[in-house]
This record gives sequence, C-alpha cells and structure tokens, in this order.
Amino acid sequence: MPLDSPKDPKIAAKAALDPENFALANCIRALSIDAVNAANSGHPGAPMGMADAAAVLFGKHLKFDAKNPDWPDRDRFVLSNGHASMLLYSVLHLTGYEDMTIEQIRNFRQWGAITAGHPEYGHAKGIETTTGPLGQGIATAVGMALAERRLAAEFGDDLVDHHTYVMLGDGCLQEGIGQEAASLAGHLGLGKLIVLYDDNAITIDGPTSVSFSENIPARFEAMGWHVQSCDGHDGKALDKALTAAKAETAKPSLIAMKTVIGFGSPNKAGSYAVHGSPLGKDEAALTKEAIGWSAEPFVIPDDLAAEWRAIGSRGAKARADWEARLAAKPQDTRAEFDRRLSGTLPGDYEPTLQDARAELFANPKKAATRKASQMALEALTPALPEMIGGSADLTGSNLTRVKAVDSQYTREAPGRYIGYGVREFGMAAAMNGINLHGGFIAYGGTFLVFSDYARNAIRLSALMGVGTIYVMTHDSIGLGEDGPTHQPVEHLASLRAIPNLTVLRPADTVETLEAWDIAIRNRHVPSLLALSRQDVPQLRLEAGTENLTAKGAYVIRQFGEGRDATLIATGTEVAIAVEAAEKLHAEGLSVAVVSMPSWELFDAQPEAYRKDVLGDAPRVAIEAAGKFGWTRYVASEDDVIGMTGFGASAPIDRLYKEFGITAEDAIARVKTLVGK
Amino acid sequence: MPLDSPKDPKIAAKAALDPENFALANCIRALSIDAVNAANSGHPGAPMGMADAAAVLFGKHLKFDAKNPDWPDRDRFVLSNGHASMLLYSVLHLTGYEDMTIEQIRNFRQWGAITAGHPEYGHAKGIETTTGPLGQGIATAVGMALAERRLAAEFGDDLVDHHTYVMLGDGCLQEGIGQEAASLAGHLGLGKLIVLYDDNAITIDGPTSVSFSENIPARFEAMGWHVQSCDGHDGKALDKALTAAKAETAKPSLIAMKTVIGFGSPNKAGSYAVHGSPLGKDEAALTKEAIGWSAEPFVIPDDLAAEWRAIGSRGAKARADWEARLAAKPQDTRAEFDRRLSGTLPGDYEPTLQDARAELFANPKKAATRKASQMALEALTPALPEMIGGSADLTGSNLTRVKAVDSQYTREAPGRYIGYGVREFGMAAAMNGINLHGGFIAYGGTFLVFSDYARNAIRLSALMGVGTIYVMTHDSIGLGEDGPTHQPVEHLASLRAIPNLTVLRPADTVETLEAWDIAIRNRHVPSLLALSRQDVPQLRLEAGTENLTAKGAYVIRQFGEGRDATLIATGTEVAIAVEAAEKLHAEGLSVAVVSMPSWELFDAQPEAYRKDVLGDAPRVAIEAAGKFGWTRYVASEDDVIGMTGFGASAPIDRLYKEFGITAEDAIARVKTLVGK
Repeated sequence: MPLDSPKDPKIAAKAALDPENFALANCIRALSIDAVNAANSGHPGAPMGMADAAAVLFGKHLKFDAKNPDWPDRDRFVLSNGHASMLLYSVLHLTGYEDMTIEQIRNFRQWGAITAGHPEYGHAKGIETTTGPLGQGIATAVGMALAERRLAAEFGDDLVDHHTYVMLGDGCLQEGIGQEAASLAGHLGLGKLIVLYDDNAITIDGPTSVSFSENIPARFEAMGWHVQSCDGHDGKALDKALTAAKAETAKPSLIAMKTVIGFGSPNKAGSYAVHGSPLGKDEAALTKEAIGWSAEPFVIPDDLAAEWRAIGSRGAKARADWEARLAAKPQDTRAEFDRRLSGTLPGDYEPTLQDARAELFANPKKAATRKASQMALEALTPALPEMIGGSADLTGSNLTRVKAVDSQYTREAPGRYIGYGVREFGMAAAMNGINLHGGFIAYGGTFLVFSDYARNAIRLSALMGVGTIYVMTHDSIGLGEDGPTHQPVEHLASLRAIPNLTVLRPADTVETLEAWDIAIRNRHVPSLLALSRQDVPQLRLEAGTENLTAKGAYVIRQFGEGRDATLIATGTEVAIAVEAAEKLHAEGLSVAVVSMPSWELFDAQPEAYRKDVLGDAPRVAIEAAGKFGWTRYVASEDDVIGMTGFGASAPIDRLYKEFGITAEDAIARVKTLVGK
Repeated sequence: MPLDSPKDPKIAAKAALDPENFALANCIRALSIDAVNAANSGHPGAPMGMADAAAVLFGKHLKFDAKNPDWPDRDRFVLSNGHASMLLYSVLHLTGYEDMTIEQIRNFRQWGAITAGHPEYGHAKGIETTTGPLGQGIATAVGMALAERRLAAEFGDDLVDHHTYVMLGDGCLQEGIGQEAASLAGHLGLGKLIVLYDDNAITIDGPTSVSFSENIPARFEAMGWHVQSCDGHDGKALDKALTAAKAETAKPSLIAMKTVIGFGSPNKAGSYAVHGSPLGKDEAALTKEAIGWSAEPFVIPDDLAAEWRAIGSRGAKARADWEARLAAKPQDTRAEFDRRLSGTLPGDYEPTLQDARAELFANPKKAATRKASQMALEALTPALPEMIGGSADLTGSNLTRVKAVDSQYTREAPGRYIGYGVREFGMAAAMNGINLHGGFIAYGGTFLVFSDYARNAIRLSALMGVGTIYVMTHDSIGLGEDGPTHQPVEHLASLRAIPNLTVLRPADTVETLEAWDIAIRNRHVPSLLALSRQDVPQLRLEAGTENLTAKGAYVIRQFGEGRDATLIATGTEVAIAVEAAEKLHAEGLSVAVVSMPSWELFDAQPEAYRKDVLGDAPRVAIEAAGKFGWTRYVASEDDVIGMTGFGASAPIDRLYKEFGITAEDAIARVKTLVGK
C-alpha cells in the first residue's frame, strides 16, 4: 500500500514482492533520511537497507506491546550494529512507544534528546541494551537468551517463553567478540536466538572484500547454527525465513539477508558513501522519489501511521493473556516472580549475611581472598536463587563455583553455572545481557590481567548502569611464577579510571564478604572484585554488623595516640601495612593503618569522614600495583610502595622483596617523611 | 631409537609409528616433567602432548640454525599456548641455543632466569614473541607472515622466503582474537603460515565439551584455510601433513592434531589435572617408566643429545648459502637490506623531517590533529619504505592512508596498506608481529575508545619493548554526535598507567609531526598517538629544529612576567588554555601555559627542568577526559577542568560547554586559586 509507485523500476520490482511491507519499510527509510539530514550527521545507509526486515520482524513476528514496554515476557530486540540507531528510533516511534515522540526524532543526536547517535540503554523504552561498540550487541543478546532459558526452567514456559532477535552487520561478525558469542550460542544450542545478518557487502573502508571473505553460512554451520539465506528486501521471503527460524528450537538461527546499503538512493545505494554521512537535501529528494514517497519530512501518511500503530498493539492480547496466567499462579510464585524481575533481594538475605559475618568473627580464617570469595558465595547463594555464576575457563582458579551454584548450564538443561570457555569478552557482555534481561544477578570470573580482554564490556556495564559482578582473581605479582603476562600492574588504576564502576580489593575474609554484599545490593553499578591468589590473615576480628568496606576506607588499626604517620593499603598489602605500623610503633611512632578496599566508595563519603580517615600526618600508600593515581591520597608517587614497571616470573616472596613491597620498605619511607 | 622400550603397550604402539621421533620427543617430555617438578609449579601437560609434533617440526621442517638465531630468513616459530613454555625451552636447549643452558632449565620460573613461566621475548634467542595471553600468539604470527610476504616482494625470494609456524591449543581458538587472526590470514591467503592445533579435548575447566563444540576443520575451511587432521603422536603422519602444508602456498594451513594431554602419564594423561600442576615425584617416575625413559633428571643420554644438536645445525648450510646470496647482491641492496633489518632510519629521514617542519612554520595551518597526522605521514613516508600502515576499517576517519602508503595489501600483491577489517585486537597483535619480524615499522588506526578492544596487545607491545605505533583518533568528547559509546573518557589515564608505553596527545600540526618523529625513532617503546576529530589552530609558530614534544611538556606561552598561575593542557585543550591565559592576563595576571603532550616523556626529564616548567604558582589542568591521575601535577582534582563521568551525544560545542571544559571554566578556577 505505498502512497506512490516507486519511480525506479528496480526498486519497483522489489516493492512488488511484498507491497504492503515495502510501504511500511518506507516509513523507516523516510524518517531515517530526514533525521540524519536534520542532524547533519549520522548513518542512513543501514536503516535504509534493513528497513524491510525491520518491518517484517516488528510487523509479523516480534512479540511486544508498545504501550507496555516493560512486559517481562516480551521478545528482546537488539540492534547490534548500533550506528543504525534511526532504524530503532523510527520503529519505536511508529509503533507508538510513548517516549519516542516525533520531536525526539527531530532532535536526533542533539543534547538532551533520547535519540543519541547510538542507542543508549535507559534513554528510552525499547532500547534493550546500549550498542555501537561492534560485536557487543550480539554477545549481550546471547546473555539475554541464556537468561530466558534459565528463567523458563525456573518459572515455566507459560510465564517465560520469548525470543531474542538481533540485527547486525559484517562488523559484528568480524569482531572477535561476535565470534566468541556465536560459538557459545551454538555450543549451548540457544534455539530462541535469531540473528538477522545485514549482508550488504559494504564496510567503511569500501567493499567488505577488502578485508573479509569468509563463507559466513558455512562458518555458522560449523559453530552449530541453523542457517538460511534470503533477499533482505523481499518481505515474504523474510517472513518465511523468520517462521523457519522460530521452528528450529535446538539451534540458534542465522538469516543472512542480501541487502543494498542505502537502498533507494539513486546515486549512493550500494556504496560506503552512504554508511556514515547524510544523504543531503538533493539526494534525499531523489531517493524519496525513487522509492515512491511524497510526504513532507518527518510526516507519516495517516494510513501508514495507523497500520504501524496497529502493529504496536498487536501484542496487547498476548500480554493480557500472560498477565492472566501470572495472576492465576499461586501467590508465592507470583511474589517470587515479581521479586526476581524487580531485582529486590529476598527477606532472608540479610539474616544469611549476618550469619556469615558472625561465623567469620567466631572462627577467623587465614585465606586467599579468592578463597574468601568462594566462602562468601557458599554462604550467600543458597539465599539468592537469582545468582548465576561462571568463569572464562578458570573455575578452579577463580573459585567461582559453589554448592548452590554448581549445576552446569548445558544444551540439555540450563543450570546455574555457565562454562563461558576461554572467552572473557564474550562472558562479560553475556553477563550484561543476563542482568539486562531481568531475573538474575550474573557474576563471572577470570584473572585480573585479562580484564583487558573484557574491558569494553566492563565499560558498557558502567555506562548502562548494570550491576554485573566481575570476579577478578590473581590480582597482583602475588600470583608468582606465571610471570609478567599474567601479573596485573596497571589494571587497578585503569579500572578505577572508569566512571561508575566500583572496584573492590578486599583485605581479608571479612572485607571480601562485605565486598560481595556491596556487589549484590548494587544493581545499577557494576562491581569488580580484585582477589588474591595468596593467603592473607584475617585482620578484622571485632564482631559487628556494619559493612565497613562500604565506606571505601576506614582505620583498621591504630598504634599509639594521635598520628605521626598514616599507612594506606588495599587488599593483600593491608597485612603488610599492619606489620610495618607495629614495628614503627615499637620504635615510638604513633601510626594509623587505613584499609582502603574501594576508592570510589571512599570518595563518595562526606568530607569530614574522609579527612578523619586520612588524617594530617604524612601518608604512605602500599599496593602491589602501579603507582598511577595514588597522588589522589598521598603527596607524591615517592610515597607509594608499589610497582614502577612490569612484574617477573618467580615465587611470590622473592617478587615482593625484589620489587620493594615489604614492611621494611614502608618503614623506611615513613621514617624519611617524619625525619626519623 | 629410545633407550628403553615403553612399558605401557598403548604408548609402545604409538612409539612404534616412528621410533626415532618418539625418542627425540621423550627428551622434551623428560625435561618438561623435571623442570615443572623442580619449580613445583607450571604446565607439564601440553609439552608432553605436543612433544612429538615439536620433534618433527624442529627435526625435519623448521629452517633455523641454533648457532645463528638472528638469521633474518629463519622460519619463525610461535608457541601461542605459552603455558607450554617448557616445550620451547627444552627444544632450544636440546638444539644448542647457547643461552638456553641446562642451568636455565633447572631454574625454570625462578627469579633472574630466562625461563619464565611463559616465554618472554628478549629473555632468550628463539623466543620470537611473548605468549601466554591466549590468542595473541597466532595473531602476532599472522603479522610475521604478513611481513615476510611484503619483505620478499621488496627484496626477492632469494633473500626472504620463510615460513611462520604456530602451535596452539583450543584456548587460542576460543578467544575472539584468535578468530580475528584466522579470518584475516584466510582472507589474505597467507600460504606460508602453518598452524599446528593441539586438539587434546581438555581445557582448564574439564573436557572442552563443557564450553566448546565447534567443528574446527569446517570453520577454518569457511575462513579460507587449507585443513588437515592427523594423529599428533605419529611422527610420520605429522611429517606428511607438514610437507603437504608447505606445498599449499595459496592458503594458510591448519593441522588439527589429535593428542593426549600429559601423554605418557599413567594416571593423569588425558585429564585437566595435568594441565597446570606438576606431576609430582611418583607420577614422574611412573611416567618415565611408561614412556621408556631411564636417565636421571635433567640428563639427556649422549646419543639423543647428539641427535638433537645435529638438528640444531641442520640449517647451517642453508644459512651459509643465504649469506652467500646476500653477499652477492649489489652493495646498495645489501646496505638497504641490512638497514631495514637493523631498524636504522635512512640518511634522508632527518632532512625530510626538517623540510616538513619548515613547511609548517612557513604556512601555519588550522587542522584536526588526525589531519595533521596525515600531513606528517604524507611528508615522512616517502623517505621510509619500512613504514606499513593500516586501519581497523576506519581509514577515512583515522586518515592513516597516504600517497606513499597507498597500495592495498591483497592476496595477490602485498602492498603497504593493510585493511585489517573490524578487528582492532587482531590488528594490534599483527602489528607487533610485523615489527618483531624485522624490516618494518607498522602503524595502524582505530578510534581511541576502541583501544579497549586492543588493550592487551598494546600491553604486550610495552612488555616486549616493540615499537608499534597506535594511531588513535577521535580522542575525546570532541567527536560529538556519535555519543558516549564512542567518546573516550578514561582512556588516556588507563593508557598512561601502562608501563613503557609513550602516550602522545599533540596540540597542533607541529606537535603532531614531532609526535610522529618520536614514534618513528623509538623502536623499543610503543607509541600511542591520541588525535582529534576537530580542528585546532597551529599554536607553535616559532621556527626551530628542536623537537619540543620530546620533552613531554614545555611552556608554550608566557603572558606577563613571573607567574601567578600555570595552566597545563594537552591536545585540543591547549588552545583553550591559551585563550584562558590571554583573558587572565588582560585582567592583570601573569600566566604560563604548559603544553604537555606526553606525561611519560616529561617525567623522564631532569628534575630541574620539570620544576621549571611546572613552576611554583597554583596550577590548573585542562583535558577533555577523566581527571584520574592528574593529581601528579596539580594539587587536587578540583583543579582539573575535565570530565567526571561519561560523555553524551550532541554537537561538539554544546558538549564542551555542558561538561564545563571552556576557557571560562579554567579562568574561574584560576581566580579561585589565586584569590581573585
């Protein structure tokens, strides 16, 4: 039902394949062209090329209700090639998502608009995750599909039974993380994951053939996927492919759609010139003529607008039926389902936590903080069915697996423990997806040094405000013989530099339990626990219910009256600081030891508290890591007992001695500062 | 020729397939068992499983001369699964590499030994690259193979004609970077790259089936590889497969070897228990009995030792012939070849540089520093045939392509410009490989925010001391509308935190040229250029030949006598600092503006110089990035005009204003500090 017939005969031929769908798709094309032109920047090519597929997907397959965008059992839609943002904004507007007004579309890429250059989670309903950094959308979607299957196993198919759809381009498939995600999805047989690949043969640097010549269908088949190919501008073929993809339940599906980037543009279609630049006024006019579009900019003809709004309410009945099924459940099932989806902790969490605290004070333990982390998980996870764990193939080192979180997530049965394989980046993004889906708290482990591999997904957790929990063990040269490739040096600083991420480096069993408590409660800030391989004594011995780690830093020991010096340390080095302070006190100095498990939490404390903790006396910091950033708390990097270069391969005691991170080194520095 | 017959009949059956090779392999197994036991830590399983393949590879195929390990045309061998380090150390010792003594083997994983837990480049000859962070070995090897083909095209097959061999395990294939590398190698048809895949079906968390079920041969075929499978303990089959792999010149080769991890250990073979723990005394004895080994620990029987030493000198004649071919070349060819391989710059580099400087002073230009970077490359690369460029599919944005570096590196012809595709991590590791190979200076571009994706390869550049040049454009919120996913905030700090990396953020055309000069000269420290999308005025107007950027920071403007305040800025914010200082001066204050393109270079200056530049007056820093780390130079983060969170999508001017990074913001802070 196009308003006009396309002028271009080739386009008319495509339109004739499914005229109604073509007309719906033209609405997306027109809005995308107009918004990018108005912003004078953006990416029109992909929305124009994928519009037909979006019209079929939203028009006939996606289960959603635009007026109830938070419906837990909605299908998830992830636009992995986030630069195609106008495709998503157009569809959300057309289907009637209330916050996606035409004014927002007109303000595409402007300050304060919800229509950012790339889709930003939290800006608008219907944006299920932030995309733009390529490959992460598909990897996050894998997490959503993992979550759906697990939640269905817990609450039943009548409450949880939805698909996760992804659109992506070749960039997402070239990125390693895209391949990690595809491999994991194929391995676990995520049959409700359906990916539409925009195979337009164009990349920023020109035709994809300059850098990419894989046989994508064959590669996905080798990874255990169900694969189809079709014309991405043929609505009927797309409909058929989507129907077949849904029918295949044992494997994830890839639909490779042959498309033309910038479809409809007489002079730019099929060229990289239409990828990241506005069409401009003249070419926009020619394009609209070519596709048969005569409405004014930003105007959708009434009949098409009505058709799109009908699509937006297509799922209303299914949602109402779902509400009825939920209402018919026993009260405790309903309450638990609501609790899980709302991210509220259960009532017995706090007593469980306090029991675990009491046990530590009753029976103090010397333990590596990674072991303390396992103890915390053993204690807390029985009360938290929402916790779902995993590791990037370092379970025995990260100690992330515990009794309650032991059942393996397999193709056959979605357990609570995910073997992510040697795929740190894929794991991190999948955890974001699990948390975004709702119903879960995902945590997963690797070595701290390999946070590098996952770094941009950690950044996205922080940017989105998603409470993913990163368990990063082997957090210093203390890992010993594996040497400098495995010893983090710059990592604590580089992670502390990320906004909205809480980095926690606990000193003992008590602080580790407290760190887990912080991470579990914080559903809108990601937490990263830096944990040791080597044993440390329990330093916190005075029983109490207050979470001191939540203050970021506090005086853990005071030797003598007043202060001649303050020693600040984190993690495994707090014990060294205590040893140094004791010896300094024996020589007549009054010394406070500050344990500082989290810079971010400390900096959020009131100024008076911070001044009180840091004191006025000279300060020396001890941390078995690079010194970068410590001048926030000490006068100079000379006052940091830490590393200035990379580590080395040797037993741990030798390393601490050779790199000068001992009580004696701290004592010497304090003496220099106090002139003794 | 084993000393004894294997006691275990299954092992005897394997040994019978190629007894001589089996005996050679036993030397590797025995040394690996002994060294890991002595260190009481390490990874015996992989060396024991891959020993037969290593014996065939070194014994019959690898072109090398142990007494001349720097021979430029040697085959490169990369142990991508670096935890199998004892395999490499054993072979280097056995073949007679002089620095790899038996004492070094005995001191495996000890302080000061060259036999670190993972192979460290620079520790010993024969270690071609540092491995351990999984997937990077194969990606670095792809770079070596790229370099070989290009160098052969420049100097002829009679001087350059070698293979690059890689051994790897499933971890390297699960990692995204391994897949990026494989895809690129297949795309470019790197026929001299041969990969031996240790398919032992075991991963740290148990059988690989917990997380990995790809059809690896089919996946590699889909990526354009030549694929074979064989028994990894059958010397004759391995020999045949390697011969066939060498015969295939149009595609890279994968040989999937079915192996048993910890081969020979009666109680641990085939189990993840042998991956990362010593066998222990008893199991070591049982294993040696099982494989037919009766020599004392660390002792190699004379006949086998002699056989291995013969292997070490197997390539001596080929090397001598090669030397003769080089000697027969015209003097200028020889000189140029030697220059290229030694990493010395050509004689006309300095005059070319000075011409480019003079041109900038003669005709000052307002330009984005990414554009200034392109201008620098245009000027310098004609004098530097060793420079080989590329981009991770952002050529038009990074502006990395110039006239002299324009020819595309394709399957058919190895040009000077590599389309790495959307594979930032793979690009970074490949650039390390190109530089490690010798003969080239590799540089490549992406957006600064996506340094995250490549981060651990940047770390390896720094750890190895390899002068890879990272061209990172769109270096702040100044990129505008693409929004927070594309706007670096924490990246400058997180990169400055990496030891031995020079981060350069030039302020104008002159500083950008100077930054390139630093990067080009520095062959043992990687450089990262952070470059702007937006235009900046040329601030350096006074002609001169000295590279001021090399000092890291310097006074670029002085307003008035003495100093009431010092403004420190980097990159695009230096112009803002100058504007603020001018206005402050108009209000009667004396202000110095310090341009600080590189913290690392500044910190390496003499103390007197640093004090002089920084001055005693209150300081305010301006940088459109997170404030983390700036307390190294200013009293408090309150004195930093910068970001405290993530960016946003909007036009650039609006962003600088909203985030408070303007001359007015700087002026207000200075006034507060000086009490005006």
